[in-house]
Amino acid sequence: MESLDVTPGDKGSVENWKRENQRETSHNENPLHSDPLTAHWKPWKPYQRPRELVRGCMLNIRGVLGTLGGVEWYGYAALGVLAAVLSFLMDLSVAKLLAAHRWLYDKLEGNRLLQFLCWTLYPVSLCSLSTSFSHNVCPFSAGSGLPEIRTMLAGVDMPHYLSLTNMFAKFLGLTCTLAAGSTVFLGKVGPFVHLSTMVGAYLSQLCTLVNGTKKEKTDGEMMVVAVAVGVASCFGAPVSGVLFSVEVMSTSFALRDYCPCFFSAACGALAFRLLSVWSGERETLQALFKTSFSNVLPFYPLEILLFALLGLLCGVVSCMYLICHRCILRVCRTRRRLAHMLTTEKALYSAGVVFLLASLTFPHSAGQYMASKYTMKQLLTSLLDNTQWGFQSHNASWTEWSSSGSPVSCSLAVFLLMKLWMLVLACTLPLPAGYFMPVFVYGAAMGRLVGEGLAHVSSTRDSTGHRWASVYPGGYALAGAAAFSGAVTHTLSPALLAMELTGQFTHAAPVLLATLVANALARSGQRPSFYDTLSISKRLPHLPSLVKACPGLSSALIGPVLTPVGVVLEKGAGLHKVQHALNTSNETEIPVVDSLDSQILLGTVQRSDLLMLLLDNKNKVSETPLEDIFSFHPTAIKLSTSNTIQEAHSVLSMLVTKILFVTERGKLVGVITWPEMQRILEDLAKEI
Amino acid sequence: MESLDVTPGDKGSVENWKRENQRETSHNENPLHSDPLTAHWKPWKPYQRPRELVRGCMLNIRGVLGTLGGVEWYGYAALGVLAAVLSFLMDLSVAKLLAAHRWLYDKLEGNRLLQFLCWTLYPVSLCSLSTSFSHNVCPFSAGSGLPEIRTMLAGVDMPHYLSLTNMFAKFLGLTCTLAAGSTVFLGKVGPFVHLSTMVGAYLSQLCTLVNGTKKEKTDGEMMVVAVAVGVASCFGAPVSGVLFSVEVMSTSFALRDYCPCFFSAACGALAFRLLSVWSGERETLQALFKTSFSNVLPFYPLEILLFALLGLLCGVVSCMYLICHRCILRVCRTRRRLAHMLTTEKALYSAGVVFLLASLTFPHSAGQYMASKYTMKQLLTSLLDNTQWGFQSHNASWTEWSSSGSPVSCSLAVFLLMKLWMLVLACTLPLPAGYFMPVFVYGAAMGRLVGEGLAHVSSTRDSTGHRWASVYPGGYALAGAAAFSGAVTHTLSPALLAMELTGQFTHAAPVLLATLVANALARSGQRPSFYDTLSISKRLPHLPSLVKACPGLSSALIGPVLTPVGVVLEKGAGLHKVQHALNTSNETEIPVVDSLDSQILLGTVQRSDLLMLLLDNKNKVSETPLEDIFSFHPTAIKLSTSNTIQEAHSVLSMLVTKILFVTERGKLVGVITWPEMQRILEDLAKEI
Repeated sequence: MESLDVTPGDKGSVENWKRENQRETSHNENPLHSDPLTAHWKPWKPYQRPRELVRGCMLNIRGVLGTLGGVEWYGYAALGVLAAVLSFLMDLSVAKLLAAHRWLYDKLEGNRLLQFLCWTLYPVSLCSLSTSFSHNVCPFSAGSGLPEIRTMLAGVDMPHYLSLTNMFAKFLGLTCTLAAGSTVFLGKVGPFVHLSTMVGAYLSQLCTLVNGTKKEKTDGEMMVVAVAVGVASCFGAPVSGVLFSVEVMSTSFALRDYCPCFFSAACGALAFRLLSVWSGERETLQALFKTSFSNVLPFYPLEILLFALLGLLCGVVSCMYLICHRCILRVCRTRRRLAHMLTTEKALYSAGVVFLLASLTFPHSAGQYMASKYTMKQLLTSLLDNTQWGFQSHNASWTEWSSSGSPVSCSLAVFLLMKLWMLVLACTLPLPAGYFMPVFVYGAAMGRLVGEGLAHVSSTRDSTGHRWASVYPGGYALAGAAAFSGAVTHTLSPALLAMELTGQFTHAAPVLLATLVANALARSGQRPSFYDTLSISKRLPHLPSLVKACPGLSSALIGPVLTPVGVVLEKGAGLHKVQHALNTSNETEIPVVDSLDSQILLGTVQRSDLLMLLLDNKNKVSETPLEDIFSFHPTAIKLSTSNTIQEAHSVLSMLVTKILFVTERGKLVGVITWPEMQRILEDLAKEI
Repeated sequence: MESLDVTPGDKGSVENWKRENQRETSHNENPLHSDPLTAHWKPWKPYQRPRELVRGCMLNIRGVLGTLGGVEWYGYAALGVLAAVLSFLMDLSVAKLLAAHRWLYDKLEGNRLLQFLCWTLYPVSLCSLSTSFSHNVCPFSAGSGLPEIRTMLAGVDMPHYLSLTNMFAKFLGLTCTLAAGSTVFLGKVGPFVHLSTMVGAYLSQLCTLVNGTKKEKTDGEMMVVAVAVGVASCFGAPVSGVLFSVEVMSTSFALRDYCPCFFSAACGALAFRLLSVWSGERETLQALFKTSFSNVLPFYPLEILLFALLGLLCGVVSCMYLICHRCILRVCRTRRRLAHMLTTEKALYSAGVVFLLASLTFPHSAGQYMASKYTMKQLLTSLLDNTQWGFQSHNASWTEWSSSGSPVSCSLAVFLLMKLWMLVLACTLPLPAGYFMPVFVYGAAMGRLVGEGLAHVSSTRDSTGHRWASVYPGGYALAGAAAFSGAVTHTLSPALLAMELTGQFTHAAPVLLATLVANALARSGQRPSFYDTLSISKRLPHLPSLVKACPGLSSALIGPVLTPVGVVLEKGAGLHKVQHALNTSNETEIPVVDSLDSQILLGTVQRSDLLMLLLDNKNKVSETPLEDIFSFHPTAIKLSTSNTIQEAHSVLSMLVTKILFVTERGKLVGVITWPEMQRILEDLAKEI
């Protein structure tokens, strides 16, 4: 027992570690001038000389890049451009698929049955494909992805959601979902933000590789940046992307992420718009849904009040929508047969639901009353049209709304009534899909209905000499869209997004007012937002959502949920005890206490330092106590058991060293790391 | 020595405290139903019944308000509206004063000498008035105020900067400065943000009074909100106000401030625009500097590159400007006679400098080459004009630029050359003044020059069949303004501000690009921004600026700068020792240690609890040890001496309880509170 009892596995790991450490040191000291061929000569590796030449080139490039600015900035630029290319490619394929459907449908003119089959089976097959593909390749790719991103941004590690297979499944699945068109009425933003996060995660790994910096820092930053880029390259709207990335953070936004966000979002938006210019779609860099509201007198000052009322209406409807959404999620979980079907027969469920939705929107049945021939983009364009409907020629963008012969207000009302429950139903589909754009379009329809009504009233009064000669319903549609989508998601960035999407600032004041009013109503009484509801129903370890579901949590103490401390070292411990501690624990930092009885925390030692110590004293038989060899790292920040879980969470998010100790009168009573915090939150989520 | 030795002062304080505590309890328990007349009967107070009736009414109103939402939301709305009213009143008086000057100058047409005297003495007297008024009423009112606000937002208490006299001095002083017109070339934003902060501080006190909540929380929030409101109600630009309030925070932006910021900024901007509608100035709610760029083809895609080059140019010039600014500040500090004059003869210095500036801008001398007859607003309007200069009738907004008969590009060049050093000189004037607007206008002139040059080149090439039929110089002016002001202040919000000021989104992409490029150049190499320079030269305890001035500070440890712990209590302390501790310390929380030798920290006791204990045991002679009476509050968060000052600063900013303990192996070695942190930062600032 005098010689050290090192297990083979650990011995190997010690050797490995030492070698790695040495290499890293030499590498860091002199990356360019050490001869790569002699330093890394391995007889079994093929093509060593070309490999090393490439390596030398790369190191040179890194040197040049380094002088111009940090490598991560190239990463941010690349993220923006890549996301824009993905977004553009997706838009292009979706447009082709939609055009193919429309062409086939038009070709079958005259045969109702074939037309019906074409109308229904095309989206059914696309959605089934999307569902089964996403289910079989990566089940984590279903849904929007935003609730998971919020959870990851709050510090929880969820590697499954950033995998390459997930990216692949999400991209193809989302393309199929979008190609199903306005029949299933689903959008692009949420999953696209998720896609951009995955691209960001890979670029971040690449930056780490090139840079040799610590991983965590770049990782977190890249995630925030990727959220901004996702929105920016989806709509070509950089500033609302940045605002959204501020909003999506649960407690605080670190200012060091601000410039990267702006830079990357600008790159993304610019690249997205340039791509549409180069593809010949547009003549210059313009807004996605360019409007042409009057610049001279877009609205009368008193109309401000009407916009506020519209905001109020949107707030009320958003509450109804959120309640319906919560109900249907509960039904899906609690009804046994439905829950069973949703876990085993996802594709069948999707096919069934989409068939129902498609039959209802068939243009020769109820579809004629809700402009179902329009794609999502056409719907929004027609709703934002700057002139009053009904006064124009038949080339106008809104003719489909009056195809049934009934007045447009009637079509709009049917659209609003039907789409509400259809959208709630579509939200249960287990495929990659966004829920923002449908809500935005729905809000626009609501605003348009109000606007058309007002325009009708004001034009009727016109004969009596009333001075409101013209009310532009398009402005109301814009305000309704921003207000309703803002209220559903509990965000304010849609107000700016509405400006950036249309490229006009004329309605800035009323749109902002309507959004604020709708938000105030939707947020009153601590109601959970759309994303919160999804988080809660998925039992994600996201503290702010959990607090919304159960307000008592905000004052829950950390003490009762702590697990006992694992391995600790006494300050007088000899090498044997160190060896034992290393064998039983796998933490990178091991706490050192005064004595095992008193448990007074003195500091920590790094696992690597202990391994080095063992290696140096391998053949000695000494039993020098630990305290004579090391000066312990004083443990940086200590909590007590009377801190709340929220406090522990926010301190942990803020620290560079991702470990916290809980002491009580100097005694160590617990250790909090991210995995531990994740366990605590997951336990809390299960209880709700 | 057996009976307690309570000093008269402390006895009184104990009594007072107990009474206050009781009143507060009864007040909190039953604010509406307790009979106010009997509870607060004081024979010496006049008009007791009416007072109490008013009080009852107020309590009723509070109850009604409380049901509709928190009282602080009314505070935010009031802040927005009040700031807008102030801004509107200031604009109105400034416009009247400027018109009076112009009228007098025009009346003296024909007499050069009198015109010269009128041109120079009017701004000289206004600026001297502003200087002496601000110096005599409140010396803290000079300058922009933004560096101080940044310091306060970082957690440091500076009550002088939020006083009522400061508000009064700043309002009148700023009005005078602005009325001096484009001669002194100073702006409104910074001081107006400061004004709005002062209004916010008062409203926050009012909310505390009505609400009875803790002061600190509302105070910090109201300050952030006030920054957003300041920008929003100064320009009617709510979203850039919010973005600016995000940027002005030094490390992180708390999400709980986001909605209040948006709400209050929207109220401010809406009120500001409604006021200009009601005053008959405008027909509806419109942008302040409304432009009419072409919506169809505002720029060709390739022009993007030219905008990026313009951004680069702005970045270079901003670096030059910042270097000049730093130099002149150093000269003002180090040249003894100048420094003496700037402390004792402020009004004289102002008069001298303004006379120099005014003589140079006299329209019959060099002034004719720099459109000196224009006010700041007219300058910006003319620079943002959408058509090319020189092609239009004589009613255009830019005629003053060609009044000398020389080509406009020559006038612009003279303007740029002269105004650079004149602006640097004007920045040394000791009066309330903003430095953002002049920089914005300067950038616009730079962009206009580039734009006019390009337009000239492209129209010359037009004859050879080149397809760039029209380049709009106004777009370049807008991009230049945003890029230059963004680069000087190291912010990105000017890009959005440019959109909100002009009410057009056509140039969003190029303006954002130019701003990013200019910012990248200005920020490279950790150069201090304009505000950082001011902070450093004023020796403000603002950590981020200090770190920029001396990068080594970011890794400075907290250990060496700690002061020894003041009063501590042993766990076995008797009443006498408690009494002694209370007499010698005035902290609200007193740390309790195991024994005075070991100094192991056990927790803290509240001062109020100790006072209560003394009061209850007034006549007893017992010597029960402290630990048998209290269970100590476990001290929430502990740092160690190896934490950096930055870490301590950010943990302190995040906590609700504003106290941190520094322990080393369980032993208490220091206490950090905000006053202590302020002392540390002030010491650091002195050393630089």
